[in-house]
Amino acid sequence: MSGAHRLAQIPPGVQCFVGDEARRRRRIEETVLSIFEGWDYEEIIPPLFDYADVFAGEALSSKTYSFVGRDGSILALRPDFTSLLAKIAAGRLRDRPPPIRLYYSGEVVRYEPPRAGRQSELFQMGLEHLGGESRAADAEVLTIAAECLEGLGAEGFVLALGHVGVFTGLLAGSGIEGDRLEGLRERVEAKDARGVGRALARIDLAPGARGALERLTTLAGGLDVLDEATQALAGCPAAASAVAELRAVAEAVRAAGLGSRLAVDLGEVRGLDYYTGLVFRAFVPGLGFEVGGGGRYDTLLARFGRPLPAVGFMLGLDRVALLLARQGGAPVSSSSPAEVVTGTDLGAALGVARAKRAAGTRVRFGNGGGR
Amino acid sequence: MSGAHRLAQIPPGVQCFVGDEARRRRRIEETVLSIFEGWDYEEIIPPLFDYADVFAGEALSSKTYSFVGRDGSILALRPDFTSLLAKIAAGRLRDRPPPIRLYYSGEVVRYEPPRAGRQSELFQMGLEHLGGESRAADAEVLTIAAECLEGLGAEGFVLALGHVGVFTGLLAGSGIEGDRLEGLRERVEAKDARGVGRALARIDLAPGARGALERLTTLAGGLDVLDEATQALAGCPAAASAVAELRAVAEAVRAAGLGSRLAVDLGEVRGLDYYTGLVFRAFVPGLGFEVGGGGRYDTLLARFGRPLPAVGFMLGLDRVALLLARQGGAPVSSSSPAEVVTGTDLGAALGVARAKRAAGTRVRFGNGGGR
Repeated sequence: MSGAHRLAQIPPGVQCFVGDEARRRRRIEETVLSIFEGWDYEEIIPPLFDYADVFAGEALSSKTYSFVGRDGSILALRPDFTSLLAKIAAGRLRDRPPPIRLYYSGEVVRYEPPRAGRQSELFQMGLEHLGGESRAADAEVLTIAAECLEGLGAEGFVLALGHVGVFTGLLAGSGIEGDRLEGLRERVEAKDARGVGRALARIDLAPGARGALERLTTLAGGLDVLDEATQALAGCPAAASAVAELRAVAEAVRAAGLGSRLAVDLGEVRGLDYYTGLVFRAFVPGLGFEVGGGGRYDTLLARFGRPLPAVGFMLGLDRVALLLARQGGAPVSSSSPAEVVTGTDLGAALGVARAKRAAGTRVRFGNGGGR
Repeated sequence: MSGAHRLAQIPPGVQCFVGDEARRRRRIEETVLSIFEGWDYEEIIPPLFDYADVFAGEALSSKTYSFVGRDGSILALRPDFTSLLAKIAAGRLRDRPPPIRLYYSGEVVRYEPPRAGRQSELFQMGLEHLGGESRAADAEVLTIAAECLEGLGAEGFVLALGHVGVFTGLLAGSGIEGDRLEGLRERVEAKDARGVGRALARIDLAPGARGALERLTTLAGGLDVLDEATQALAGCPAAASAVAELRAVAEAVRAAGLGSRLAVDLGEVRGLDYYTGLVFRAFVPGLGFEVGGGGRYDTLLARFGRPLPAVGFMLGLDRVALLLARQGGAPVSSSSPAEVVTGTDLGAALGVARAKRAAGTRVRFGNGGGR
């Protein structure tokens, strides 16, 4: 099929930014990374690709661009930073005592079916908190996420919290897996209680779990949903304990003054398969998708030989840029127009330009077009 | 061969930077990009991959990592920014009047045989000046390259200038091509006059061209080499005119106060096959390879349907970082240690941390390890 495009075409899903757009992205990145630094996270610049099995999680592997390395090994462009950072923390940084705080900013590449708003090249800014005390780390990460969105001037943002343990607790012992599990997950996400009921037909569940799973589709709203959930899930200790964990974290973040930024959505059950506890997404009114999100993944690092609990989150730079453009934030432009330096004597004009540059002036050299 | 590695191994040639190393790289990037902005170049963030035939030049295609896209087309990770920017200038930016000044900073991926100092993932910072008056643009680009190296504090750097037209002028009409041409090029680069003579055996050349090609191996040194070259190449008008062009550019840069930074190496004839005029490399004493380079490519944009003359240059971030580390520049570390915020009441401690952050303080939250 190569050759089925003209040389000037661009492949679907790739990105290109010039001038003001690039400048707006740099400003967003600077704002977010300075907040990450402000919470004492260290930057990590990980490789762009690695052996494909590093990214072997089910949710990602179907979206991964892989290729054969010159030595015959199967490599993959990173579809995600978290697996890569987990591997590095377990390998190259194995002698560093926890907790380890790392942040990153860069591109990931995923295969996404070509449709509006879906790109195969995505820019992510995120952090990972590895090996810390879970509750404090969860609360810290939520607080940093909120500070980033505040710092960016995102109006009306909300962090919608869930906990993977609610859903998995209710399904414990049911044996549901594979496509049937995915179908159920999808119905819960769709807030379709009757669909959930149908997806659970002929599944063996603990008493009360069926009703509770149907209830998940309505357990969304303010923090008071946690009270409702505590009652609804009382019959399932594993799920109730997940709610209690979530409540402790949410209470701490509320006590720190961010209560109005928190929401609860226990029907948030999709997401990457490595999450084990808190999960959250950042929403902004009027934007039909989240601008970021994260969660706890306590088993991923063990895969790489260093069992450490962990939590992280990321913001999608592309989505944040779109959001701020829609919300009509201050236009970004270069500070001042450059001073034009020109002259018939090339060397003399260049000397003038050098002197102006040494004085900190922005210059535009020469008379422009032609050749 | 997949599986022939342990999960913790990293593929050969990929990079990873953490903490101080990442910080040093950020500082270098900031310094260089602010100089690019200072000369009124606009940032462009081009895609990470494109159709493989965009990078179809001979010198690069053997080094390109390519893969099959989901739609069956052959894609390639960018091995180079210049071709990509040429395509974008001819396509997406086709309505922009020249001259167009663009800069970039990011990764390229090349297959390099695994040996010391060779990476397959390289970070480049560079610019392209498209559609400007050639002599002024060449001189501008050399001046910016010098300002970058000055701004970085690179001690003793030199820009070694050559011109593709000298070599191609001497070979005009000879019909030499393919492997024989590469063999000759390589002998000239190696400054091996006898080898050049052997490579030219049975090649039909203009009178005097054989001797002049052998002389190329010695035409290296200060700017006075240009006088010597003018005499040595007097018999070949095309080569002599290339020297005259180079001299005009070098004179302008010298007049602007950078004479001590310029050298001439007319035996510099390797390089990417798209160069058509000025070529240069930035060298620093004690480092066995160049830290950057560039040149004029007046025919590349026509490939994409917009014939415009162009010149550009790039600095290798990896090499600059290595250089500055070897030259023992000021150590880079974070401005101040973070203030530790901890407490038995998680919410209260988080509130204190939020208040300190709002006041601009860097904080490290929580009591650290365990879970």
